[in-house]
Amino acid sequence: MNLNYFLSASIVVSAIAFVFAFWLLNWVKKQPSQNKRIEEVSGYIRKGAFTFLNQEYRNLAKFSGITALLILVLLPSPIWKGDIIVNITMAVSYIAGTVFSAVAGVIGIQVATIANAKTAEAAQKGIKPSFLTGFRGGAVMGMAVVGSSLLGVALVFWLTGDTTTLLGFSFGASSLALFAKAGGGIFTKTADIAADLTGKVELGIPEDDPRNPAVIADNVGDNVGDVAGMGADLFDSNVASMAAALVMGSSLDMATNGAINVIMVFCYAAIGLLASIIGVATARMGKTDNPTFALNSSTYVTTAIYAILTAVATAAFDFEWRIWGATIIGLSVGVLIGIATDYFTDDSKKPVQKTAAASEKGPALTILSGVSYGYLSAFPALVGIGLSALLSYKICEPLGEGYALFGISMAAVGMLSIVGMIISNDAYGPIVDNARGLAEMGNLGDEVLEITDRLDSAGNTVKAVTKGFAVGAAGLTVIALLGAFLSEVNAHAIVLGLVEKGKLYISGFDIMDPLVFFGLLAGAAIPAVFSAMLILGVDRNAQRMVEEIHRQFDEIPGLKEGKEGVVPEYDKCIEIATTGSLKELIPAGLTAILATIFVGFIGGVKAIGGFLTGNIVSGLLLALFMSNAGGLWDNSKKYIEAGNNGGKGSEAHKAAVIGDTVGDPFKDTAGPSINTQITVVSLVASLMSSLFLMFSLLG
Amino acid sequence: MNLNYFLSASIVVSAIAFVFAFWLLNWVKKQPSQNKRIEEVSGYIRKGAFTFLNQEYRNLAKFSGITALLILVLLPSPIWKGDIIVNITMAVSYIAGTVFSAVAGVIGIQVATIANAKTAEAAQKGIKPSFLTGFRGGAVMGMAVVGSSLLGVALVFWLTGDTTTLLGFSFGASSLALFAKAGGGIFTKTADIAADLTGKVELGIPEDDPRNPAVIADNVGDNVGDVAGMGADLFDSNVASMAAALVMGSSLDMATNGAINVIMVFCYAAIGLLASIIGVATARMGKTDNPTFALNSSTYVTTAIYAILTAVATAAFDFEWRIWGATIIGLSVGVLIGIATDYFTDDSKKPVQKTAAASEKGPALTILSGVSYGYLSAFPALVGIGLSALLSYKICEPLGEGYALFGISMAAVGMLSIVGMIISNDAYGPIVDNARGLAEMGNLGDEVLEITDRLDSAGNTVKAVTKGFAVGAAGLTVIALLGAFLSEVNAHAIVLGLVEKGKLYISGFDIMDPLVFFGLLAGAAIPAVFSAMLILGVDRNAQRMVEEIHRQFDEIPGLKEGKEGVVPEYDKCIEIATTGSLKELIPAGLTAILATIFVGFIGGVKAIGGFLTGNIVSGLLLALFMSNAGGLWDNSKKYIEAGNNGGKGSEAHKAAVIGDTVGDPFKDTAGPSINTQITVVSLVASLMSSLFLMFSLLG
Repeated sequence: MNLNYFLSASIVVSAIAFVFAFWLLNWVKKQPSQNKRIEEVSGYIRKGAFTFLNQEYRNLAKFSGITALLILVLLPSPIWKGDIIVNITMAVSYIAGTVFSAVAGVIGIQVATIANAKTAEAAQKGIKPSFLTGFRGGAVMGMAVVGSSLLGVALVFWLTGDTTTLLGFSFGASSLALFAKAGGGIFTKTADIAADLTGKVELGIPEDDPRNPAVIADNVGDNVGDVAGMGADLFDSNVASMAAALVMGSSLDMATNGAINVIMVFCYAAIGLLASIIGVATARMGKTDNPTFALNSSTYVTTAIYAILTAVATAAFDFEWRIWGATIIGLSVGVLIGIATDYFTDDSKKPVQKTAAASEKGPALTILSGVSYGYLSAFPALVGIGLSALLSYKICEPLGEGYALFGISMAAVGMLSIVGMIISNDAYGPIVDNARGLAEMGNLGDEVLEITDRLDSAGNTVKAVTKGFAVGAAGLTVIALLGAFLSEVNAHAIVLGLVEKGKLYISGFDIMDPLVFFGLLAGAAIPAVFSAMLILGVDRNAQRMVEEIHRQFDEIPGLKEGKEGVVPEYDKCIEIATTGSLKELIPAGLTAILATIFVGFIGGVKAIGGFLTGNIVSGLLLALFMSNAGGLWDNSKKYIEAGNNGGKGSEAHKAAVIGDTVGDPFKDTAGPSINTQITVVSLVASLMSSLFLMFSLLG
Repeated sequence: MNLNYFLSASIVVSAIAFVFAFWLLNWVKKQPSQNKRIEEVSGYIRKGAFTFLNQEYRNLAKFSGITALLILVLLPSPIWKGDIIVNITMAVSYIAGTVFSAVAGVIGIQVATIANAKTAEAAQKGIKPSFLTGFRGGAVMGMAVVGSSLLGVALVFWLTGDTTTLLGFSFGASSLALFAKAGGGIFTKTADIAADLTGKVELGIPEDDPRNPAVIADNVGDNVGDVAGMGADLFDSNVASMAAALVMGSSLDMATNGAINVIMVFCYAAIGLLASIIGVATARMGKTDNPTFALNSSTYVTTAIYAILTAVATAAFDFEWRIWGATIIGLSVGVLIGIATDYFTDDSKKPVQKTAAASEKGPALTILSGVSYGYLSAFPALVGIGLSALLSYKICEPLGEGYALFGISMAAVGMLSIVGMIISNDAYGPIVDNARGLAEMGNLGDEVLEITDRLDSAGNTVKAVTKGFAVGAAGLTVIALLGAFLSEVNAHAIVLGLVEKGKLYISGFDIMDPLVFFGLLAGAAIPAVFSAMLILGVDRNAQRMVEEIHRQFDEIPGLKEGKEGVVPEYDKCIEIATTGSLKELIPAGLTAILATIFVGFIGGVKAIGGFLTGNIVSGLLLALFMSNAGGLWDNSKKYIEAGNNGGKGSEAHKAAVIGDTVGDPFKDTAGPSINTQITVVSLVASLMSSLFLMFSLLG
């Protein structure tokens, strides 16, 4: 079998995804739009979103410029010790990682800010056309992200043939994800909280009232946080999982002078994208009247197609069935984690209803209830991730040394195989959320609002599943990255002459080694510190925006009263959210990266092994806790608003609103950003492994 | 050197501690009391506390009866495979562990429920006599706990000479601690929350208003949760740290046929108790007017005496200076963690003040702020524990194989050496808190209330430090227990014929082994699940009590209006708190224990190694987060009540009260119970290691 053949095939499938995305984009654009007011507001949102993206990419350019320079001088080996060409390739690959992800982000924002208005207008014709518009808008993002990540990985591998360089590409993607997800997360919650505090709480005006200067920023936030940020996050995970599998797979291939393991990674990834394309193309509400059903069933269709096609490929190309098994284990556990997450955040289940009931006794019990269920929700996912790692390891162990860890990385690839579908479903959420706001601002009437509400609620339910999926996938990916770190350390140790060729420098990380244990504890603290810094950042930034809103209400005559023709200065709020979010993000990101470097230079590669592990364990725990508690509070509030436990305006409702506000930065800022933080730290560790081997105080 | 000489010395020092405790108890009893009302209420509290203790010990007797039976049949080896005498010794030792701890608890409750009234009355004569009464009351508990734990360990070791049996004694202490700390924690917060919700929130009556049927239960809770529970917790940690050190020390001694390492453990422990006695005896407010200063300075005095006396002993008995160094590292890091904790919970520092300021913008920001600082607060402690483990390992490593891990266990012994002083300071808190309530109910006037308020606030500040200390000590202890687990596994593997004598069955736990990694993730989930179950238990139980309070207000004529002579049925509330707390505790404790057994029988000793590690890492993180966030919210509320950010009755105050209510079960139920949960799980693992070696699915 020829590797080039499979690389070409991967590139062709990526191209198909792009063509399909382009077709979907045009389809969305062709949908009718007549309402002037909606056109206008949607224009504001688009402008605001691009203001943020512009600023973000500018900051990123500075950050990654400096990082690229550091890579050029130091990585994978210091320039005075290694080959300068390798360092240049690495730096370029890093930049390419940021650029490929950025392009996908721009495409996503482009379509999302068009699809929101079209979805709102389509709702006048009924739920089905409206659903399809929202879904296809989201699918453009899904196709763009997965197409672009597969294309990037295939190109880098084709051009360099080197997996360490691929880690550079992955690190580029992670850097962008850090800005997009954490920065976007701060942006969206700054605007959301500020809008709620001044609008709902102080003035008692509805959520999307156009008088509120923060309302456009709030809608922009949905796009930059939930569309662009989430896309960059999954781009990052997808690239990282492929990179980890390729690092291990190619080192296994070296032993046989073949390429079968690398080929398998590309083959399975391409099939995953193909399955997602089919899943998206066939998604319809059909005879049902239930958008949640439509979203979920297309996920299951994609999963089934993937399982069948990979089985066919395994038989046709004589791949190892055990590795196929590992992939399917990953995928199945991903689905199971999604279902478990759903239990804790779905309003037809006990946790949400109990939290709503607890709210009748005041906000303290809302919080305590949500915190408790949030902690409980971590259990099935953690055990699921642990089990899938264990099973995929055991199933691949008989294939020979090194295959067991490769099995774990293939389970991660499997879990992420249907990521195109996942992103489509996920991006659907903010689009219909925006559509709801636009329908309200465009006065489309109660019937339309009811439809957009139903679409929005489906988005929220599905979001819980996709987020559980994303955390699970990230979990397996970072375990695989830990394996990749070990591979890198051993490879560099040979280059540095620390051990003979064919020997291992370290075979693992022993917990009883105090360097490892020290690393474990330090690593476990980092996600807590990182998320605390992000939440405090949201807090500070929201306070800045509240001040600005108060200034506008005071200084712009007629604004508060809603006088005809008086428009708030929306862009001032967008500016505050943009500048503030990027300013608050940098220290948090740097703390995580510097802590890694610090621990590495103190305790060497062993301490780093512990550090990464501690980071993964506490990171997954906190990410699951925060995402699920946040989703649970959100849905408890909605459950009460639907007329339960006293309904809108009751004491229970006030308590639930407080819970929801606490949950906002949990679920949309800190929780999902922890994924990215873990990946960034893992990649920094792998890339710097040679330096840690050369210079460390105790290691 | 003769080991028996040191064992006798330990027993003599324990006896001195008991004599001193008896003298202090009599001193407290001799303090004047005249106020009838205070007498009466204090009698209710005493009666309530003993009702709970009675019930608790009755439940414990059932639980530990069954456990003792299981031990008799199964541990350390199944009765059909081993020596029945060993199993009987183990079961008896287990029971002894519960009894020794229970006796200390009874003494503590006895004095605390007398000292509260005496402290209140002494406040009429000024702050100094009042302080001394409260402090000496607490010191009785401190002396009883440490005297009884040292006595128990010394006796068991003298009679059996076997360290595995000592683990059985330690497990007994942990079982009691689980009931006392987690059960007491649920009790105290059930009453506190129910009293607040019905009193302060619904009726707007003050905290200690005697009309509220929950008010006595609330005061009882301070005693059973914070005095008896905390004492049992530290009894447990103290015994566990000595047991871990003795397990490793005696296996080192075996190699030389000596007893010097075991001698050192007893010698240092006895000196720690002696230093605490001197520290307690010399504690005075002196010329200062500052109770916090008095409490902290006596801690520092004790620390200094300990360091000097152990240095003298090390020189005199020719102990290894490196091991002395490890002990001092542990002690110093304990103090440092205490200081770091103080920063996050002291109202003169930024975190408390910023949280108070955030409260002006509503309860959601109070919560977010507290959560963030809580997470940040985990960082210094985790890194401190990691560093002290690393340093004590490295400093003792040159002494030979096995000494490095022994060094870690001696660092834990060092951190816990001044535990007598710590408990004294800690038990002082609930005594003066109760005294404040009694002064209010006895109408002792504003001047007295002001004094008791100051004493109470000092108690809160010192509590933060001692809690940080307790978590740090528990952290090192469980790391040492992990080492003890490894020792046990290797010892049993030889007995079972799995390896030859002199060989190791396993030398450590490799993170890259998927059994270990699976254990890690599962273990990390347990503290989250355990604390969620406790918090939900508090929640459910508080709701039951709220219903009872409503019933009393409805059915007892004149109660609500405060008619002269109308007394609520206090004992009904005490009964609810008692029954409910013990009922809610059992499932949480069993979940942790069963998960350990389950993981052990699935994945064997390797999975358990990972499980314990994951448990330690996430347990420490959550314990620190919850304890510190809770303390911070409490102090933010007090800071606002002192007239800042709008003062009492302002919006900020209302928000801060919500934060405080959320923090209550964090800091007094779940947070400190996690310590016990980790210890219990570690001991179960060690005791069952032989079974896990014999029967496991994948291990």
